[in-house]
Amino acid sequence: MLEGYRGKALELLEKIGAEVGDVVEIVKNGLTVRGLLMPSYSKDDSILVVKLDNGYNAGFSIENATLRLISKGKSRIHPVTSEEKRRSEVKIISTGGTIASRVEYETGAVRPALSTEEILMFAPEIKEIAEVSAEILFSILSENMRPEYWIKIIQSVVSAFKEGNSGIVIAHGTDTMSFTASALAFALKKLPGPVVMVGSQRSSDRPSSDSTINLISSILLAKHGEFAEVAVAMHGESSDSHVLAHRGVKVRKMHTSRRDAFQSINDIPLAKVFWREKRIKMLRTDFIKRSDEVEASPKFEEKVFLLKFYPGLRPEIVDYLVSSGVRGIIVEGTGLGHTSDQFVDVFRRAEKEGVFVGMTSQCLFGRVNMNVYTTGRLLQQAGVTPLEDMLPEVALVKLMWVLAHETDLAEVRRLMQSNLVGEINLRHTIDLFPRWKYE
Amino acid sequence: MLEGYRGKALELLEKIGAEVGDVVEIVKNGLTVRGLLMPSYSKDDSILVVKLDNGYNAGFSIENATLRLISKGKSRIHPVTSEEKRRSEVKIISTGGTIASRVEYETGAVRPALSTEEILMFAPEIKEIAEVSAEILFSILSENMRPEYWIKIIQSVVSAFKEGNSGIVIAHGTDTMSFTASALAFALKKLPGPVVMVGSQRSSDRPSSDSTINLISSILLAKHGEFAEVAVAMHGESSDSHVLAHRGVKVRKMHTSRRDAFQSINDIPLAKVFWREKRIKMLRTDFIKRSDEVEASPKFEEKVFLLKFYPGLRPEIVDYLVSSGVRGIIVEGTGLGHTSDQFVDVFRRAEKEGVFVGMTSQCLFGRVNMNVYTTGRLLQQAGVTPLEDMLPEVALVKLMWVLAHETDLAEVRRLMQSNLVGEINLRHTIDLFPRWKYE
Repeated sequence: MLEGYRGKALELLEKIGAEVGDVVEIVKNGLTVRGLLMPSYSKDDSILVVKLDNGYNAGFSIENATLRLISKGKSRIHPVTSEEKRRSEVKIISTGGTIASRVEYETGAVRPALSTEEILMFAPEIKEIAEVSAEILFSILSENMRPEYWIKIIQSVVSAFKEGNSGIVIAHGTDTMSFTASALAFALKKLPGPVVMVGSQRSSDRPSSDSTINLISSILLAKHGEFAEVAVAMHGESSDSHVLAHRGVKVRKMHTSRRDAFQSINDIPLAKVFWREKRIKMLRTDFIKRSDEVEASPKFEEKVFLLKFYPGLRPEIVDYLVSSGVRGIIVEGTGLGHTSDQFVDVFRRAEKEGVFVGMTSQCLFGRVNMNVYTTGRLLQQAGVTPLEDMLPEVALVKLMWVLAHETDLAEVRRLMQSNLVGEINLRHTIDLFPRWKYE
Repeated sequence: MLEGYRGKALELLEKIGAEVGDVVEIVKNGLTVRGLLMPSYSKDDSILVVKLDNGYNAGFSIENATLRLISKGKSRIHPVTSEEKRRSEVKIISTGGTIASRVEYETGAVRPALSTEEILMFAPEIKEIAEVSAEILFSILSENMRPEYWIKIIQSVVSAFKEGNSGIVIAHGTDTMSFTASALAFALKKLPGPVVMVGSQRSSDRPSSDSTINLISSILLAKHGEFAEVAVAMHGESSDSHVLAHRGVKVRKMHTSRRDAFQSINDIPLAKVFWREKRIKMLRTDFIKRSDEVEASPKFEEKVFLLKFYPGLRPEIVDYLVSSGVRGIIVEGTGLGHTSDQFVDVFRRAEKEGVFVGMTSQCLFGRVNMNVYTTGRLLQQAGVTPLEDMLPEVALVKLMWVLAHETDLAEVRRLMQSNLVGEINLRHTIDLFPRWKYE
C-alpha cells in the first residue's frame, strides 16, 4: 500500500518494494535519515513523507537521494477484521475533525477524511499499546456538531462498552470538542472505563501536527486510565513533552491555533501523559471510579440560549427569547455575575413564564457571587440562579440536559446548582489561574 | 475629620486630637504598630483602621490599647479648591465602582460612595506624585454603564485636557472597564497625554484591597507615562509587586475576584509600574505619542449585537436581529472563526440587508483565519468579515463606533479590518499565551 504517492516517488518506492509503515533510509547530500514511511498528500510527486523518531513527520525530496528499505513494518494496515473487533480493548469512534483530516490540495483547505485506517496509518505504534478497533460514526467538521449528533456518539459509546471494550477514544474536531465532552459527561451516568476525546490543532500531514502524539496519549488513557469519566486529551504545553487529560466539564479551547489550546479552567486536569515513556501520572485522586455497568440518558432540550451581556445590550432580547419558546437562558454576565439593572424586570417576567435563567461570568476564571453587590442581589430576587464556577458553555449544555429530564423549575434550579459530574469545583487554589510573564 | 468613627473609637481619637491622615501609634499586648489613620467603615465602634507601611489597611481594636498621636498629616484632606484646580496636572474623573466604594453595613453589600475626597483619603501619597484635582462625574456600578455614559466620560476627558492637565485618571468599576476603555480609545482620536482607567477588585476597607496601589500607579502613569493612549492600570500578579498598564483595546477581565484579573490578551502591556519605587518601566516602544491637541468623536451606534455561537444555536436568531433593526453583528465563533454551515444563508441575507457581520473567536487567544477550513470560506463568501485577533468585546465596541461614523458597508468592512488604535496585533509571539503549571 502506497497511499497518496504518485509519479516519481511512487516509482522509486515500488522499485525498492517499500510500503507505508515500513522503515526506510534516505541518504542525501551526505545526510542519512531513517523513519517510518507515511502516506503522502503532497502536491509534489517527488516528496517522501517519513515519520521521524521524535514523532514528527517530515517531507524529503527524492531528487539526488538514495533510498533503501531497512525493514518491513510489523503492523500492516488493513480494515479491522471481526476477530480484531472481538479482541478489541479500546474502540476508536471517529466523528471527523482535523485529527482525521487531510489537506485538499485543489483548494488548499483542510477537509475531513473518512478512513479510520488512515488515522492508524499515522500512528502504527497504537497497536503496541492496546488492541484497538475503529468505527467511523460520521465525518463532520465539529462546528457543524449538533445535539442530535451528541446522542449518536453517546449511543455508540454505550455499544462499544457493551462489546467489551474497556476504554473509548472519540476523535473529534476541536472547535466544539468541549461542548461534546460536556454533553457526554452529563448523559453517561455510569461508565465502566474512560471516555477520552481527542483532536488535533494541526492536520497530520503538517510537520508540526499534534495528531499522532494526542492519539497515542488518548489510547494510553483509554487503556490504562483509572478514571471512568469523560476526558479531553490534548497537548499540555507548546512543546511535545506531555499531553494533558482534562476533565470534560472543566476544559475550554483557549487559543485558535496553538497545540496547547485546551486548558482546564477553574480546576486541575485529571492526568498528565508522558507519551514517550507511555506513562500516565494522575494529578488528582477524586476522579469518578469505574462502574460495572454502562448507563446513559442521552436527551437534550435545544430550546435554550446563551446570552452574553455587554453595555448597550437591550433587555428586549429576553422578551423575544421567551416569546420564541426558550425554556432556559444562560447569561454570561460581567464580573461576579451581573447584567445592568435594566434586566431585572425582564428576567423576573421570564421566570414567571417558567423560564430558567442562570448566571455565569464572561471572565471565565473564578466563581460568580451575586451577594456582594446590589445588582447581584436584585437579579437573584428576580429569580436568576448563580451557577458557581461553571463555564458558560458547560452550564448551557448542562441546562440542555437538565431541561430534557425535568420540568419543575425548582428542581431544575436545584440540579443546576448541584455538582453532578465535577462541573462545579467548590475549592479553588491560587495556582488554577495561569501566569502571564513580561520582562 | 474623623470620617466613619463612632462611639469609643471616636471618643479616644478626639481625646488625643488625631484626625484621618495623621500618623498614630497603637501599643497593645506589648506590640507596637504605627500607621496612617484611615477612615473607618467598621460596624464595630472599637476598631481603628490604620494604613501600614506595606500599603495594607489593618483594623485594630482599641480594647486594652494605648493610642498616641505621632505626627499630624502633611496633606489635610479638603474639597478641591479653584487654586488646586488651576495647578492640577492630573485630573481624577470618578465614575463609580469598587475603587470608590465602601461596604453598606446594613446589608453587607458594597455600594458606591460618592466622594472623591474619600478616594484621596485612602491614598494621601498621591499628592506627592502630582498635583491632582478630582471630579465626580457620576457614581454608577459599572454593570450599569451604557454608551451614553461613555460619551459623558469622553467629553469630560476632553475638558480636563483643555483645562491644562497632562494626564487623566478614570476611576471605574471593573465589570465593564475594558468596554469603556475600548470606547474611549476609538473615540479619542488625538490625545496630549495618557488616559488611565483604574479600578479595584476589593473595596478599600478590606485589608487585601488593591485600590490604593492601583490608584497610586494610575497617577504615576498619568503624570509620567510617555504614551498618549487609553490604558487600564491594575494589579499585575497576585502579590503587590507591580501594576500593569494594559493597552485599553487589548485587555480583558479574566477572573471574577482576583486582583490580577485584568490581563492583556494577544499583546503585551504598555508598561509595568513599580509603585513602591514610583518607577514606570515601558514594555514596548510602539505606543501612540503625545499630540498637541485633543480631539474626540464620541458617537456610538447601539443597534449592534454580540452573538456567541454554540452547537444547537438556531440560525433564526439572525433573522430576528436583522428584522429588529440591528446594523451590525459580531459573531463569537468557534476556533479559527466558525459557526455551523446552517448560518451561511442567514448571514448572506443579513449582508444583503446592509448588516455588517464580523467574526471573532470565543477562544479569545489567537487569530481568526477563515481560509483554512471549508466552513470559514463559505462564511466569507456569504459576506462575513474575519476580524484578526480582536477580542469579541473590543470588536463590538469598535463596530458601535464605526457604524456611528460610516454608512457604506464596504467602508465599514475596511475600517473593521484596519488597525486604528492598536486593537489588531499582526505579530504574535509565543509568550503572549499564559502558562498553566501542574505538578
